[in-house]
Amino acid sequence: MDYMHGGDIYTYEGMIDFSANINPFGPSRKVKEAAALSSEWIGVYPDSRLSRLRKALAEKEDIDGELLVFGNGAADLIFSIVFAERPRKAVLTAPSFSEYAQALKAAGCKIVYHYLKEEENFRLTEEYLDQLTEDTDMVFLCSPDNPTGQTVDRELLQEIIQRCQERHIRLVLDECFYEFQEDQTGILSAKEALVTKEVFLMRAFTKMHAMPGLRLGYGISSDRGLLEKLCAVRQPWSVSVTAQEAGLAALTEPERVEMTRCFVSEERKMMEKELGRIGVRYFPSSANYMLLKSKYDLFELLKEQYILIRDCSNYEGLKKGYYRIAVKSSSENRQLLSALEEIYSKDCRTAE
Amino acid sequence: MDYMHGGDIYTYEGMIDFSANINPFGPSRKVKEAAALSSEWIGVYPDSRLSRLRKALAEKEDIDGELLVFGNGAADLIFSIVFAERPRKAVLTAPSFSEYAQALKAAGCKIVYHYLKEEENFRLTEEYLDQLTEDTDMVFLCSPDNPTGQTVDRELLQEIIQRCQERHIRLVLDECFYEFQEDQTGILSAKEALVTKEVFLMRAFTKMHAMPGLRLGYGISSDRGLLEKLCAVRQPWSVSVTAQEAGLAALTEPERVEMTRCFVSEERKMMEKELGRIGVRYFPSSANYMLLKSKYDLFELLKEQYILIRDCSNYEGLKKGYYRIAVKSSSENRQLLSALEEIYSKDCRTAE
Repeated sequence: MDYMHGGDIYTYEGMIDFSANINPFGPSRKVKEAAALSSEWIGVYPDSRLSRLRKALAEKEDIDGELLVFGNGAADLIFSIVFAERPRKAVLTAPSFSEYAQALKAAGCKIVYHYLKEEENFRLTEEYLDQLTEDTDMVFLCSPDNPTGQTVDRELLQEIIQRCQERHIRLVLDECFYEFQEDQTGILSAKEALVTKEVFLMRAFTKMHAMPGLRLGYGISSDRGLLEKLCAVRQPWSVSVTAQEAGLAALTEPERVEMTRCFVSEERKMMEKELGRIGVRYFPSSANYMLLKSKYDLFELLKEQYILIRDCSNYEGLKKGYYRIAVKSSSENRQLLSALEEIYSKDCRTAE
Repeated sequence: MDYMHGGDIYTYEGMIDFSANINPFGPSRKVKEAAALSSEWIGVYPDSRLSRLRKALAEKEDIDGELLVFGNGAADLIFSIVFAERPRKAVLTAPSFSEYAQALKAAGCKIVYHYLKEEENFRLTEEYLDQLTEDTDMVFLCSPDNPTGQTVDRELLQEIIQRCQERHIRLVLDECFYEFQEDQTGILSAKEALVTKEVFLMRAFTKMHAMPGLRLGYGISSDRGLLEKLCAVRQPWSVSVTAQEAGLAALTEPERVEMTRCFVSEERKMMEKELGRIGVRYFPSSANYMLLKSKYDLFELLKEQYILIRDCSNYEGLKKGYYRIAVKSSSENRQLLSALEEIYSKDCRTAE
């Protein structure tokens, strides 16, 4: 099976990786130390109940810890919820994260795509509500969306939730990038997610805490039947001792999250300004990455300069000419912008 | 969902754990160091192709690396193969590892149990062949079996493989304890497993390399269609960077495997002798654990002495009165034997 994602530094060794959208500061010293120290505990099975992590996260979110479910990364939970519920018909927005479709296809589910419009900056609009038909079993929404960086409007989200409740549609809301979201009041909180049984809120430590290598995601739901089913389709030890320890350490650093969000936001604004000046078409984003559109093969041209970006042509709803770039450190971002400027200015000269 | 396994040191804190059947020497220094060092790499996604580990394991087994599939522990692969193939009818031996049934039930598969006989020491016999009917889609066999420690006889295994081939039955052969097996000539090698497309050989780093906390298992099959399907039902990043690094380190220490096997074998013989002397009924085992039968509630009585063993009453095909003990270090084994001797001798005195 072909690899369909960013972050493939194994094929593209030694390049600056703008293709994975991870906290530009990387994992914290404390998280790395916790991971390293956990090597003393690899000889025992992981705590299948994740008692300590469950307690810490429940306290942070001010919810009942029993309503949390953990996975080997959020991706693990995507497959698990699909196999647990076996939907017959699901609605996906396009473009969006490709693993939803992957999981649904594996379970033989019919997928209906709701194509987001480029002229609306791929923003979700009220039109989406018409997709929430009686015969729909499951929908996935990603906010901020990957790869567009768009968030779902708060009021629209409430309407969607209500519609899902009325029609008993499982709403999987993927907030894996929520901590990067500029307007934090737009986020559906864990407490709010619990109000409606149909909602399954999904998050991960992967992006903000920069630990994709360890795999730690979680889900929040007030549907205890669903939580039971999620346990039935998976082994009891899906989260390693290392991921559990690193996750616990990550929860002790809320100020680092705030600092990162602030930095990313400022840096993204700088990049938007520069991209505009250079003449690169970009779509407004609320997250730590941006979708670009270009007549140049940016993937190949930047590769020549040892810069790896995400070619988005394999996203449903996109085609050749769309690229995702991460917001990284100031110097790396400058390097990318310089490279883009060179590509764009060369062409001007050729055209003259 | 209730936890159904051994190794629950989180509930039974501070006890000597004979309930998990892990290498008594624990993870090696080299494996622990590799795990600790990998903390520098948690900020990147794991290599979804596991290129280095794949290459090293393929060389060790002298097979084509493309015929390997890795999982987040072997348990991950059990669920994956069931969801990938969606069998309608499966045959399980009883008693055996409970996750097979768990996965099959989650996928709505009909399970037929082939009950092994206590009077035959729970050994698999030719009678089993009658279970391999035309309408059977999948069978699981565990050798050495968990919890009995029994291996499948080499000739019988060949007959089973042939029958599975003729009737297109997927044979999942779980060899997670194969490195502990006393008679190594009785093992189905990776190369041999590849001869028959129906065979899916499953192994793990968990037991011999004592890294249950990290989760690393693998499967071997010459059925490329199956390998593709196994990728389709799972995320591409199921094995963490830490597990990959630890696994690589583990493969560099074949002499440690030999030494452990030798030690466990000697120690088990000593334990058998002592158990016989004390009067504890045990079943012959080829692995690093043994099944006991007792009229005493050994689980409760040993718990009082801070010794945790596996109460096997929740195994299909067993009932209250069966217990599994691991072979641990000499001093720990002595401690367990003393505790058992006390339980058994007390009763003699009472009876007098």
